[in-house]
Amino acid sequence: MKLSILGCRSATPSENHHTTSQVLELKNHLFLIDCGEGTQIQLRNHKIKFSRIKHIFISHLHGDHFYGLIGLISTFRLLGRTSDLYIYGPKGIKEIITLQLKLANSWTNYSLFFHELESNISQVIFEDDEVSVSTIPLDHRIYTNGFLFKEKHNQKRLNRITTNDLKIESDSLKTYAFCSDTAYNENIIPLIKSVDLLYHDATFLDLHKNLAKRTKHSTAKQAAKIAKLAEVKKLVLGHFSSRYKDKKQFLSESKLLFHEVELASDGKVIEI
Amino acid sequence: MKLSILGCRSATPSENHHTTSQVLELKNHLFLIDCGEGTQIQLRNHKIKFSRIKHIFISHLHGDHFYGLIGLISTFRLLGRTSDLYIYGPKGIKEIITLQLKLANSWTNYSLFFHELESNISQVIFEDDEVSVSTIPLDHRIYTNGFLFKEKHNQKRLNRITTNDLKIESDSLKTYAFCSDTAYNENIIPLIKSVDLLYHDATFLDLHKNLAKRTKHSTAKQAAKIAKLAEVKKLVLGHFSSRYKDKKQFLSESKLLFHEVELASDGKVIEI
Repeated sequence: MKLSILGCRSATPSENHHTTSQVLELKNHLFLIDCGEGTQIQLRNHKIKFSRIKHIFISHLHGDHFYGLIGLISTFRLLGRTSDLYIYGPKGIKEIITLQLKLANSWTNYSLFFHELESNISQVIFEDDEVSVSTIPLDHRIYTNGFLFKEKHNQKRLNRITTNDLKIESDSLKTYAFCSDTAYNENIIPLIKSVDLLYHDATFLDLHKNLAKRTKHSTAKQAAKIAKLAEVKKLVLGHFSSRYKDKKQFLSESKLLFHEVELASDGKVIEI
Repeated sequence: MKLSILGCRSATPSENHHTTSQVLELKNHLFLIDCGEGTQIQLRNHKIKFSRIKHIFISHLHGDHFYGLIGLISTFRLLGRTSDLYIYGPKGIKEIITLQLKLANSWTNYSLFFHELESNISQVIFEDDEVSVSTIPLDHRIYTNGFLFKEKHNQKRLNRITTNDLKIESDSLKTYAFCSDTAYNENIIPLIKSVDLLYHDATFLDLHKNLAKRTKHSTAKQAAKIAKLAEVKKLVLGHFSSRYKDKKQFLSESKLLFHEVELASDGKVIEI
């Protein structure tokens, strides 16, 4: 399992700090998670093959999480894509994209499928023989989902192995939970219990916890508390507010509660 | 008069080649012309003050000319803008922008005025004591306008000067014509006659003139022919297709017909 951070800045991009976008490589999949403005440029910078992206997951309809989607969809067309593309995101995303394609009189030459989300209960939204993806309902100013990516048992192997082997194999199945943007919310704990990797909203430091509460974001300390209660194996903090020039305090603040933590940064690759 | 090219690549952006966007400084105005994805990042790179932009002109609704607009509008809000913003562009632009603001539940805290264009005849769309802006109807795959920016006589001075002085003063009034995207189209010649600076679509070389015709773009040679017929003072070529690594041929091809020509490039500043 390999996570590549393309951007982890909240609100607005700058030359060296891109808004939210990540690529998760799991089994034979390359999942794109969120798609802030300029994501297509970041994909090129990090030499990620556009054609390998078949599923795009959008957490919510704030611009720093999806303004790059229409540009990516257009570029897929210009690159001559023919394979299907699946987009999972809040209700309304289909209208935004198709309105722009219609007014540009430029339809895609590949099939574009929208899976619009409205539920406030976790649901499986993608599944094949090797992986499943389910939603993690989050508490933000507008309708928002995190996403839980899980490796699955290989059914053919299962038929041949013992109970003890099964236990070992289960432990080795990788899991990744993406939780941004969200207020501190203990309801997600059962959904992300013991994941190998948790990416969590840490827009603010504890100093600005009132601002976090008002804008329905989290502090580094709150992210660490969630990681601790959920007994995750590793925590990555992201979605930093641009007000903080030095990010070291995010690390020290969260390490008081949870040690296995690191900071997201543009271009960082985490392999589990 | 000062023109800053923020991007001049057609179709898709890459790290070092941005899609169309320009800033024109004329009298006390800073006009933004087109707004490809990542324009807000380019504005920062070139240290252009966001608050000085009050008028944005969008030529047409192909993504490489306006996908950065919604992000810029959102960033204006986040920066605490309170002054009015005027957007001039094809019918439909208001629906695209307001749909996204509505679904993000994030209205602007400044007044946003849309001036939607539908006419196929040139019209004045902005005017004050010092400058006027009018449309230049272009021939492209979808409804498209170029824009003509003109300095005006200062009325107070006019009342005091002689006929001879008036002639001298008229010659010194600066004019800029932005013509992208467009097929070769002699109908624009009366509108852009003798302008100080013409930016013209030169997506292709003569080698690909059939492709230019089919996609309703121009070649460097065609741009030069328009410049010559219109007797403009200076020509800037832009909107280059990414297929050409070396741009020198654009220059040599157009110099056969028109000598006062240069190539656009990201970051180039032209002062007249």
